[in-house]
Amino acid sequence: MSDDTPLDVDGLGACPIPISDYPNVLLAHGGGGSLSQMLIEGMFAPTFANDWLNPLHDGAVIEIDAGRMAVSTDSFVISPMFFPGGDIGSLAVHGTVNDVAMCGARPMAITVGMVIEEGLPMEDLWRIVSSIKAAADEAGVAVATGDTKVVDRGKGDGIFINTTGFGMVPDGIDIRPERIAVGDQVIVSGTIADHGIAIMSVREGLEFETALESDSASLGGLVEAILAAGGHDVHVLRDPTRGGLASASNEIAKAAGLGIRLRETAIPMQDQVLAACEILGFDPLYVANEGKLIGIVTSEVADEVLATMRSHPHGADATIIGEVVDDHHGRVLLTSRIGGNRVVDMLSGEQLPRIC
Amino acid sequence: MSDDTPLDVDGLGACPIPISDYPNVLLAHGGGGSLSQMLIEGMFAPTFANDWLNPLHDGAVIEIDAGRMAVSTDSFVISPMFFPGGDIGSLAVHGTVNDVAMCGARPMAITVGMVIEEGLPMEDLWRIVSSIKAAADEAGVAVATGDTKVVDRGKGDGIFINTTGFGMVPDGIDIRPERIAVGDQVIVSGTIADHGIAIMSVREGLEFETALESDSASLGGLVEAILAAGGHDVHVLRDPTRGGLASASNEIAKAAGLGIRLRETAIPMQDQVLAACEILGFDPLYVANEGKLIGIVTSEVADEVLATMRSHPHGADATIIGEVVDDHHGRVLLTSRIGGNRVVDMLSGEQLPRIC
Repeated sequence: MSDDTPLDVDGLGACPIPISDYPNVLLAHGGGGSLSQMLIEGMFAPTFANDWLNPLHDGAVIEIDAGRMAVSTDSFVISPMFFPGGDIGSLAVHGTVNDVAMCGARPMAITVGMVIEEGLPMEDLWRIVSSIKAAADEAGVAVATGDTKVVDRGKGDGIFINTTGFGMVPDGIDIRPERIAVGDQVIVSGTIADHGIAIMSVREGLEFETALESDSASLGGLVEAILAAGGHDVHVLRDPTRGGLASASNEIAKAAGLGIRLRETAIPMQDQVLAACEILGFDPLYVANEGKLIGIVTSEVADEVLATMRSHPHGADATIIGEVVDDHHGRVLLTSRIGGNRVVDMLSGEQLPRIC
Repeated sequence: MSDDTPLDVDGLGACPIPISDYPNVLLAHGGGGSLSQMLIEGMFAPTFANDWLNPLHDGAVIEIDAGRMAVSTDSFVISPMFFPGGDIGSLAVHGTVNDVAMCGARPMAITVGMVIEEGLPMEDLWRIVSSIKAAADEAGVAVATGDTKVVDRGKGDGIFINTTGFGMVPDGIDIRPERIAVGDQVIVSGTIADHGIAIMSVREGLEFETALESDSASLGGLVEAILAAGGHDVHVLRDPTRGGLASASNEIAKAAGLGIRLRETAIPMQDQVLAACEILGFDPLYVANEGKLIGIVTSEVADEVLATMRSHPHGADATIIGEVVDDHHGRVLLTSRIGGNRVVDMLSGEQLPRIC
């Protein structure tokens, strides 16, 4: 296989930068001169083409309706860059689009800022850029504008990606932890801990009968379905990423000043993920998810929201896992398999570095 | 001086994280658990406090009027982090706020995404965070939301900062290179090459009679003044950062399909910067600026815009340096000191790595 063999990524075609001339990213590809221009005009602009991006100015100008705009930013530093079920490119889209969706908003556009380490194989960059494109298309968001920097070898780690996303919150929707009330039902959209365990299994070289895959996915469609079913009765949406279900639940309980009681036996988990947690010594409640959400809704709409979620591909395993209670204010209580209760704290210290 | 001696940064007070317990940033400060929370609730939230940020959700929700919103993103990887005239924190605010302003918009808010290398002194982080706050206040923008990641030692370089900014474009303003016309005047807001040469002088250990300082500054106020004076007759605004005046002019000429003729003798420069360029072997036309802009306006309003700029602190040395011509379409022509003409190309390759 010669250096010239083009890599066709998921039907997006061969790397548009001649690999024989530029097998690796150079400092000059981020220097603002002609090599930067080659990367922008040869790879980024044609891949992400849309009306906002096409003028290639320093900023994009977007027509906006009046209303409430949700904005979220996230930097992605996951190691390894490519993992079962995704890569840093798709993850960077899903992570930010999901944070926008968790405000109750319809994601509209993202910005993409890349910090590349000198020497990154050009074909890896192309795989990642193609993956950003595919994930953005699937999520229905445009890449409105971007930025590329290259740092010297040994001063970065392949690639770090910042995405910032925004979208409008529909009228009548009001998502925030302060709205939860005693009796509200806590729903999780599917099995927990898949992302973190998939990454750790790769790092630790664990092998299972079937590959553990990250759940990395865009949840905008699922949120739209939830809001259509529950409307104003949807009080909180949250994606339990870093820190997992435990940290997300704690943040909500603390912000609301109420207790959250979870039932351990109700929390959906894949057997293999549970086994891996035991081998690796992780509590799955603290392990990151990248394609799951917690919804807290009034008991009146809980069954209808649950049914709607189960009919959506990203909510097939949705389950009611607990409720909001008038004790243990600001804390999360777990009723264990054997019936005992324990307080579930925030994650202290670092469990899984560079998981997203 | 004990480890406990607090650092008072520009009147913002001592570092709110106890330095004796946490002299350096740990991986766990980015892990989503209790140390992350300490950093967010102890340092970021009280420093940047505003109505959008205060709920500390994954996203901010902002009331927006209908209209054209400008959005820009930039990652900052400058080395060294602290330099004469600024630091990576103030630069990250100025750079993005300026890109939003160059769309003709009034900057409203920014997001801040930090990728910190494990081991960064906590007091350095506090200096940078304080500097972001001071620069944001001066520019009149709020930090709407943020994100913090920590990467292992040797996989980053102190800190990288992504900022994404947005703001609304006032009615009647239409800024884009396609609007330039033959006879339009090209104005630069002050001396060029100050930023790049200040950074390179530090790196190379050059000493001058007076310190060379970066021109890093927020240009939102200057843009407002220009638009008040020139209105719809302001065709282009551009801040000549990476690639300098030459690359910015080339991008405009290319997008417009017209020529731009510049007069070398008219371009303002500090004597010391010119001397440093000669010592270091740099063409100042290609050296980065971080507090200057190019305005291209009709000849009818040029004098009034120029006078307005000169009465603004960031435009005191503003000068008309050239005009739009109907030859050399898509290119930039420079009339040199001795009267000859030469084509000024895009910067090819890398001149000054990690300048922003």
